Amino acid sequence: MLPAKVKIVEVGPRDGLQNEKEFVATEVKIELVNRLASAGLQNVESASFVSPKWVPQMADGAAVMAGIERRPGTIYSALTPNLRGFEAALDAKVDEIVIFGAASEAFSQKNINCSIAESIARFEPVAKAAKEAGLRLRGSISCALGCPYQGDVPIEAVVDVVQRMKALGCDEIDIADTIGVGTAGRTRDVMAAVSKVFPRERLSGHFHDTYGQAVANIYASLQEGIEIFHASVAGLGGCPYAKGATGNVATEDVIFLLNGLGIKTGVDLDQLVEIGDFISRAIGKPSASRVGRALLAKKRDGAASCV
Amino acid sequence: MLPAKVKIVEVGPRDGLQNEKEFVATEVKIELVNRLASAGLQNVESASFVSPKWVPQMADGAAVMAGIERRPGTIYSALTPNLRGFEAALDAKVDEIVIFGAASEAFSQKNINCSIAESIARFEPVAKAAKEAGLRLRGSISCALGCPYQGDVPIEAVVDVVQRMKALGCDEIDIADTIGVGTAGRTRDVMAAVSKVFPRERLSGHFHDTYGQAVANIYASLQEGIEIFHASVAGLGGCPYAKGATGNVATEDVIFLLNGLGIKTGVDLDQLVEIGDFISRAIGKPSASRVGRALLAKKRDGAASCV
Repeated sequence: MLPAKVKIVEVGPRDGLQNEKEFVATEVKIELVNRLASAGLQNVESASFVSPKWVPQMADGAAVMAGIERRPGTIYSALTPNLRGFEAALDAKVDEIVIFGAASEAFSQKNINCSIAESIARFEPVAKAAKEAGLRLRGSISCALGCPYQGDVPIEAVVDVVQRMKALGCDEIDIADTIGVGTAGRTRDVMAAVSKVFPRERLSGHFHDTYGQAVANIYASLQEGIEIFHASVAGLGGCPYAKGATGNVATEDVIFLLNGLGIKTGVDLDQLVEIGDFISRAIGKPSASRVGRALLAKKRDGAASCV
Repeated sequence: MLPAKVKIVEVGPRDGLQNEKEFVATEVKIELVNRLASAGLQNVESASFVSPKWVPQMADGAAVMAGIERRPGTIYSALTPNLRGFEAALDAKVDEIVIFGAASEAFSQKNINCSIAESIARFEPVAKAAKEAGLRLRGSISCALGCPYQGDVPIEAVVDVVQRMKALGCDEIDIADTIGVGTAGRTRDVMAAVSKVFPRERLSGHFHDTYGQAVANIYASLQEGIEIFHASVAGLGGCPYAKGATGNVATEDVIFLLNGLGIKTGVDLDQLVEIGDFISRAIGKPSASRVGRALLAKKRDGAASCV
């Protein structure tokens, strides 16, 4: 039995745009967030309160949060690496705070020069402050299906990080295949294992389409009862590890799957395709969404085309 | 339980290249077929013996078949629309004859101006001749998951065409999602239904990635016990119904899935990626394979990249 409905966390404005070298104007980011919320996305990852030295693209997080319309019911989430970032996010009236850690020891050491356990412990003050402020807290686990440095990642390592994030009070936990190497069988096994230590309905799948596996991994996750998925409109983001390769799975492609399965999302696919076209033009790159390209080609060329 | 091994029918040299406007040199086609067979593909759809007026790209079928090396055990298949085409294929020493029909009445009427039943009955002399000559006979059913003209295609219509092709003596039958609109649930239902009237181990799935669903549909088919799949190296082919949209699923992406699931194919992924690069350069188009692009980017940029 697949879930009857699914929540999509739209990560395009944050996870997607942060990999863009050219600065995307604040007004464009605001329009993107507003249109995504209008199209029915229930959670829009809108900003990152990190040091502008690390991620200059996200330097305007406060301005984005100040400029957007707030749709009742929509969750506007933001990444916060530390207490300073948390305070900025709180000032900006973010609804959900995202903290993060890797399931790969090699990735953790290489990227932040500390162990997984240490990196998560560092989030304790942020988690505590978020809870005190009454904000939702989401934990994101990168490299859960493979690591660019160590290759395989043991399932027990993913389970361990889930337990640490649960202990910090996370309301929702993301199992992220940061480099897109996961396939359906492994996805199913990881989802089954983490469901044993954290409520299934508050786990999410974050898949990258670098190897074309994301939609199949979502299907495998649905079969395990997972009902929250991350996706990025137009497949925004690319793969930071391989230039020209695909990154985040495109929201359009995920909605096409879910519509076909009769699973409710509340997202309007036509609007989403238009938003994908808008942001692709704004950043001057072709859409990485197959559905986006096919449906736009159909509109352009007329009736007797695909579908 | 998923199958332990899968046979891939590589359709790039025929189904893929036939949509290319610019004529691809015979030597390039020969090299493509030879390299695909060397990489371990067990069945390579190598030519189409149709009128050169209809499909000028395939006019050199006899020369391709005469020029290739024959690997022992490899099946070199070809499309034959009629007895004349069959005789040319027989002269060219093709191993397997492919006949075809649509599961959509609207598609059949619009494309060949006759009913599905009539179109399949017309293949009777070809089927008989193929059997008499001791050749393998494969039947391909287009629009099995949706039609560009009528939209939905009833599962009973697919089952009916399978039964007609079975009656003609087909050794293998392809369930083809010609326009890529199928999603995993429908795929599973269609595969389950046709498995009741034709041996499961001789059914194949032919999926297009126009809406990004092909890899998920293959996974859903594997769960139904299907163990033959079609794919096109570098995703050659595009979508004839929507310019710029994706067509046949890329062989590289399918092998990545199957390798991840531990299912044996006998296909060497590294060689396949090189072949995808070779043919993409030869036709002057970027590869539509995500695996191809990611692994080539990794090779180009060095070690610390995806995987």
